[in-house]
Amino acid sequence: MKKAVLLLLVLSSLKLSAQSDSVIFRAIYTDELVNGKGYDWLRELSVGIGPRLSGSANAAEAVRWAAKKMKEAGADTVYLQQVTVPKWVRGEKEFGSIVEKNGNKTEVPILALGNSVATKSDGLFASVIEIHDFNELKKLGKEKISGKIVFYNHPFKEGFINTFDAYSEAVGYRWAGPSEASRYGAVGTICRSMTNINDDYPHTGAMHYNDSLPKIPCCAISTNAADLLSRILRADKETKFMMKMNCQMMDSVQSYNVIGEIKGTTLPAEIVVAGGHLDSWDNCNGAHDDGTGIVHTMEVFRIFKAVGIKPKRTIRIIAFMNEENGLRGGKTYAAEVMRKNEKHVAAIESDAGGFLPLGFGCEMEDEKRIKFLSWAPLFLPYGLYDFNGEGDGADISPLTNIPRIGLKVNSQRYFDFHHSATDTFDKVNKRELHLGTASMAAMIYLLGMYGL
Amino acid sequence: MKKAVLLLLVLSSLKLSAQSDSVIFRAIYTDELVNGKGYDWLRELSVGIGPRLSGSANAAEAVRWAAKKMKEAGADTVYLQQVTVPKWVRGEKEFGSIVEKNGNKTEVPILALGNSVATKSDGLFASVIEIHDFNELKKLGKEKISGKIVFYNHPFKEGFINTFDAYSEAVGYRWAGPSEASRYGAVGTICRSMTNINDDYPHTGAMHYNDSLPKIPCCAISTNAADLLSRILRADKETKFMMKMNCQMMDSVQSYNVIGEIKGTTLPAEIVVAGGHLDSWDNCNGAHDDGTGIVHTMEVFRIFKAVGIKPKRTIRIIAFMNEENGLRGGKTYAAEVMRKNEKHVAAIESDAGGFLPLGFGCEMEDEKRIKFLSWAPLFLPYGLYDFNGEGDGADISPLTNIPRIGLKVNSQRYFDFHHSATDTFDKVNKRELHLGTASMAAMIYLLGMYGL
Repeated sequence: MKKAVLLLLVLSSLKLSAQSDSVIFRAIYTDELVNGKGYDWLRELSVGIGPRLSGSANAAEAVRWAAKKMKEAGADTVYLQQVTVPKWVRGEKEFGSIVEKNGNKTEVPILALGNSVATKSDGLFASVIEIHDFNELKKLGKEKISGKIVFYNHPFKEGFINTFDAYSEAVGYRWAGPSEASRYGAVGTICRSMTNINDDYPHTGAMHYNDSLPKIPCCAISTNAADLLSRILRADKETKFMMKMNCQMMDSVQSYNVIGEIKGTTLPAEIVVAGGHLDSWDNCNGAHDDGTGIVHTMEVFRIFKAVGIKPKRTIRIIAFMNEENGLRGGKTYAAEVMRKNEKHVAAIESDAGGFLPLGFGCEMEDEKRIKFLSWAPLFLPYGLYDFNGEGDGADISPLTNIPRIGLKVNSQRYFDFHHSATDTFDKVNKRELHLGTASMAAMIYLLGMYGL
Repeated sequence: MKKAVLLLLVLSSLKLSAQSDSVIFRAIYTDELVNGKGYDWLRELSVGIGPRLSGSANAAEAVRWAAKKMKEAGADTVYLQQVTVPKWVRGEKEFGSIVEKNGNKTEVPILALGNSVATKSDGLFASVIEIHDFNELKKLGKEKISGKIVFYNHPFKEGFINTFDAYSEAVGYRWAGPSEASRYGAVGTICRSMTNINDDYPHTGAMHYNDSLPKIPCCAISTNAADLLSRILRADKETKFMMKMNCQMMDSVQSYNVIGEIKGTTLPAEIVVAGGHLDSWDNCNGAHDDGTGIVHTMEVFRIFKAVGIKPKRTIRIIAFMNEENGLRGGKTYAAEVMRKNEKHVAAIESDAGGFLPLGFGCEMEDEKRIKFLSWAPLFLPYGLYDFNGEGDGADISPLTNIPRIGLKVNSQRYFDFHHSATDTFDKVNKRELHLGTASMAAMIYLLGMYGL
């Protein structure tokens, strides 16, 4: 059935029963805007603890912090779920330099992509070839690519309204680009940062090696540096690049998902899962990615207590570990759900930043979608209007047979900061963050009361 | 007729004729996101020219800049409309200090409210009485108020979803507070800044004297300073305040509205007006207030040219002068429309900041509102969903008999910067600004083609 038709069906059958829910909604939003603690909690997590890549000491501290905070906020029970995570370390200061035929050298900041291998200790020094898309790479082939550093210069397409569409369109050059270049004999890759903004900060992010191909070192450079390198290459095809990185994949280590629960009053065996991810990249404070998702969901305990909500179903809030470079937290959780044969009503995630909330994406069959859409009018007074699209969240994506929901927020500023040193606390607006928290609490209230 | 009923009527009668409009919309948004110049223009206005209070040299420079820019952007004709504006000057550095009984002095930054009289040259030094609302003021009366400085400490109510509602609820203490306090013999007023944020910046803004009462000096202090003063007063009722300000209302001077036009192809005598205001307060760069409104509307010339739109009706873009402390630009324009008996189809304004656009407010009779609402679905793919509320813009408000429309944007961050030194270019996101420009251009396209 077409989604637009579904929405019309729903609008024409709206019932007055929503009136008491609208009173609860008003209470949730008012309490959070007036008494919300999420902004203070986010400061503790992003400024107090800071970068928290899986396997790091900070990630372990974040686990302890989240468990303590969930208890204080009013969870009935809080426990840790073991997750084995990769431990990738960046090593010492990375170095990148554009070296022109005439001897001119221009140092540019680089960031190894997450999971990258190191260069040799005296660095990788080779000619650069600029590539705009995979077709061009294939066309040039081994003859032109072999022995060179491939420079993927594929900018975000600005015409997309939602910047996540631009990210999806471009991120393959970061994720799969190194192995695709290696296929044609490249010795390394440089990737233009995945962002709309023009500035001097490289943005890192996960990449994935194809095990059947040689693993080559790969890094990101800022959009300004990418434009510069492109300009230099236009004038001098023999331009080389020097990159030094001593990043390293260590043995896997043990970490945890942090799980807090409110037991359902009448249907405790039916579970509603809500979460964000606790880990961040090592080069940033992970404020919008995904500190805001963590406080969006953890504060539900406080709000439910303050407003006096006692959900029929069990609410399980999860601070997932290792979304950024392995998704082991989400995969481990989904495997445990299968193993225990637990009944999950729905899963909801916030991992798109702490900006103005605008709606929810949903991944579910049509029958459940009709019920889901019937709730949309309750959110309209709070500015959430977009319930028709897809989109859930990476950590809950392994829960393949369960209805999944993702908070949608204003996407315009997200990739300005995503995986960059600029993803800091000051980029988060208190009221926008608290509106997101209230919106998550309101949706979790409906799921806990009515199921799907 | 109820607005919700109107919307349903409209939805059920949607015609396919909207298809070609949706193609134009896509062209407008894509062109602006990819090729938009508004962000660069805003840098020129807010950083290059800077503060531009009516009557100042910068305001005159802004007039020249806007006229030049409109011509370059493709206006058929550009002209200046004479406007006599008040010239209020802040004078030298202002000084404020909290003086406790025990002799402790704490200097706090103050800003004279716009239009305020000066203190005596050696300052105003008097006891402070904290007032939370006008009822309390009235109750305390002459006996308690006389001879004192009234400290209006009325915070924004955080429970409002739209921060403009919090502003409306509180701004009376800034606008009318000084004369109301003077009625009971107060010698001066201090006003808590009109903002949601807790920081150290006072926010100025216009105040208005009741001519039948003594004019007393009035200033704003930051929210942090207001909280501090309140704490000190709780411990020490005899706390005094020293304020020194030598602001002054000079003789009125001549300034201008800057007007650019595209002549309508088939109905040139029917006019669509669109504008923002060119003046700003003297203490800030006026980026969001209202530099963004200026570029939102001025760039329509460039977009129409790029996309090839030739409107049937005449489009008149106006950079209004003196919104902040007199509204003389808007009043003069409306008087001229009356005098010339010009036919105006509609007026539209952007004066709520350059944040993510979310819809349009409208002030018009029901019959026209039905036509207006029929356009709403065209905007939904671009994130504009809110067409049901009221709200136009101050500069077009004197056009009382003409349908008036106001761009609605995300309000959450606006009062963080409003009338404060922090209203600077870096607070504007390029994509959010350009989405606003495209939204204004799309609405002006519809008004120019179909009228109202």
